[in-house]
Amino acid sequence: MTLETTLAAIGPADGEAMAAARDLQSRLTKPAGSLGTLEELSVRLSGLAGTCPPPMPEPAAVAVFAGDHGVHAQGVTPWPQEVTAQMVANFVAGGAVINAFARQVGASLMVVDVGVAIPLHGGDNLVDANVRRGTRDLAVTAAMTEEEARAAVEAGISVAGALVEGGAKCLLTGDMGIANTTPAAALIAAFTGAEPAAVTGRGTGVDDDTYARKIDVVSRALALHRPDPSRPLATLAAVGGLEHAALAGFILGAAAHRVPVIVDGVIAASAAVVAAALAPDAVAAMVAGHRSAEPGASVALGHLGLTPLLDLGMRLGEGTGAALALPLVAGAVRVLREVATFDAAGVSEK
Amino acid sequence: MTLETTLAAIGPADGEAMAAARDLQSRLTKPAGSLGTLEELSVRLSGLAGTCPPPMPEPAAVAVFAGDHGVHAQGVTPWPQEVTAQMVANFVAGGAVINAFARQVGASLMVVDVGVAIPLHGGDNLVDANVRRGTRDLAVTAAMTEEEARAAVEAGISVAGALVEGGAKCLLTGDMGIANTTPAAALIAAFTGAEPAAVTGRGTGVDDDTYARKIDVVSRALALHRPDPSRPLATLAAVGGLEHAALAGFILGAAAHRVPVIVDGVIAASAAVVAAALAPDAVAAMVAGHRSAEPGASVALGHLGLTPLLDLGMRLGEGTGAALALPLVAGAVRVLREVATFDAAGVSEK
Repeated sequence: MTLETTLAAIGPADGEAMAAARDLQSRLTKPAGSLGTLEELSVRLSGLAGTCPPPMPEPAAVAVFAGDHGVHAQGVTPWPQEVTAQMVANFVAGGAVINAFARQVGASLMVVDVGVAIPLHGGDNLVDANVRRGTRDLAVTAAMTEEEARAAVEAGISVAGALVEGGAKCLLTGDMGIANTTPAAALIAAFTGAEPAAVTGRGTGVDDDTYARKIDVVSRALALHRPDPSRPLATLAAVGGLEHAALAGFILGAAAHRVPVIVDGVIAASAAVVAAALAPDAVAAMVAGHRSAEPGASVALGHLGLTPLLDLGMRLGEGTGAALALPLVAGAVRVLREVATFDAAGVSEK
Repeated sequence: MTLETTLAAIGPADGEAMAAARDLQSRLTKPAGSLGTLEELSVRLSGLAGTCPPPMPEPAAVAVFAGDHGVHAQGVTPWPQEVTAQMVANFVAGGAVINAFARQVGASLMVVDVGVAIPLHGGDNLVDANVRRGTRDLAVTAAMTEEEARAAVEAGISVAGALVEGGAKCLLTGDMGIANTTPAAALIAAFTGAEPAAVTGRGTGVDDDTYARKIDVVSRALALHRPDPSRPLATLAAVGGLEHAALAGFILGAAAHRVPVIVDGVIAASAAVVAAALAPDAVAAMVAGHRSAEPGASVALGHLGLTPLLDLGMRLGEGTGAALALPLVAGAVRVLREVATFDAAGVSEK
């Protein structure tokens, strides 16, 4: 599907289904409101599906989009760039944390090379959708052309479509890309208007000097490109990354299919902000998996009006926070589908 | 097992296994510390098991302990007492939220009548361990004799032992008992020294008048019994409940078998405080599943030095917050068991 077809397919949440979910929640055998955040989540998922109860979000599929970044040359991370490709090999071999978590929650895992600098060897679960071998350095020039950004977005749309056609009832965002928290911070600053220092974090754990350099790089990139958030694709191309673009498309694809997408950490949150700028109704499909330790993630989720399900101080990416949130999302839906009402169970009300 | 045998079997965490877990975490293919709270959890579970990696916490078993409360006569809740028995029937039929969540996370569910006021009809997963048909009114007299409290504690120990012998690798606390947040608040105040108003909450959602009455009942009970926290069993008998006592035994049983026990909400947290007063080393076996909306739960967890995994504003009990936390506990262990090291995966370090 093209970007335009996808955007045209995204519609608002269904108010009637949401009202039905609220009513059902009030009749189930539990005190009203006693499931906290999960009750409103069940209402949102009903609105997305257009029916109450909504389908279970299983089977679920994680897609890890991998890319490299020209801005690595600015010294924004102590990790060598080849770690992106090495970690992709680790995902393909099943040895990374996201593999362990996907197995734990019963989700499938696919890795999509959308912009890795080094040619990758295949694997059953590795998809080659490489748009270019890493972005240009956003501190110096636009990271991508608009055509490249669009191609990466459409790669993400295509992966979402294939997974949904294959039976996935819930999509989970994953990412890998050494230096990718720098474009994520730049995107969040560009779309929310927040200051670079408020959205730039320590990523994998950088020292004070590197952290200061990272904030400076984000500030200089914004001054250089003066991105206009009313032109989302141009902004994405100027200061984003190929995996950020693909994730934006992946989220839009989920929304177009009215399938929930669990948003992981700061990379995914920055892509979600791009997706919302392209299609505000796409927010109805988004579930914030966790509150990443990266400050930009909280700024992005606040901008989107999303409350994260988990807050474990995690800052790994890969889709790890999305995977751990899946059982909570499934639990929220299962309540609507399986719990008895006061009437049916013969339980007295207060 | 008697209480004394159980207490004698509880020992401290294994420092060597914890050190091995910390070392392993630092060599796995992820930035150091990037799994936040889950890394320290994996270290604690290694210390409990006495080996790194520890066994997976699956299969897991939820035990819901049910009891009634003489203090119901004080008007501390708008729910009629018979709802305890009705909800037990709902659990047995599989229609409650804990049933849905146990199915979601693949845990077994057992219901234990330790003090329900109404004789219950059987069911495959209903155990009759009734000590008495509800406690006495703790605002007027001791809720239980010490012998009754001990019998309920030993019922919990026995259930834990049977589940572990049956293959359970992780125990989850559940509870049901109309009015049971009042004895929970009294226990937490008695053992932590906190003010009644600081540990008493709105339970299932009581109005302002009932809430004020509830605080007054807790205050009067403490003034009447003057419980001495250095005499845990006497304190438990004076202001506790039969399911609170059984849960304290269940937690002690888990600790004696060196199996982790996921502590649910305020009822379980009050029982955990009793268990820790009887055997301080039992804390090593406890995992706080979630931060209940009941204020007493946070006071109790703070007293125990435990950080809850989830914070979803839930206040249902039944074991619901423990069940939802199980995949996180399993995920934390799975990382130690399955994730590749930098060396093994050929991934460069920073």
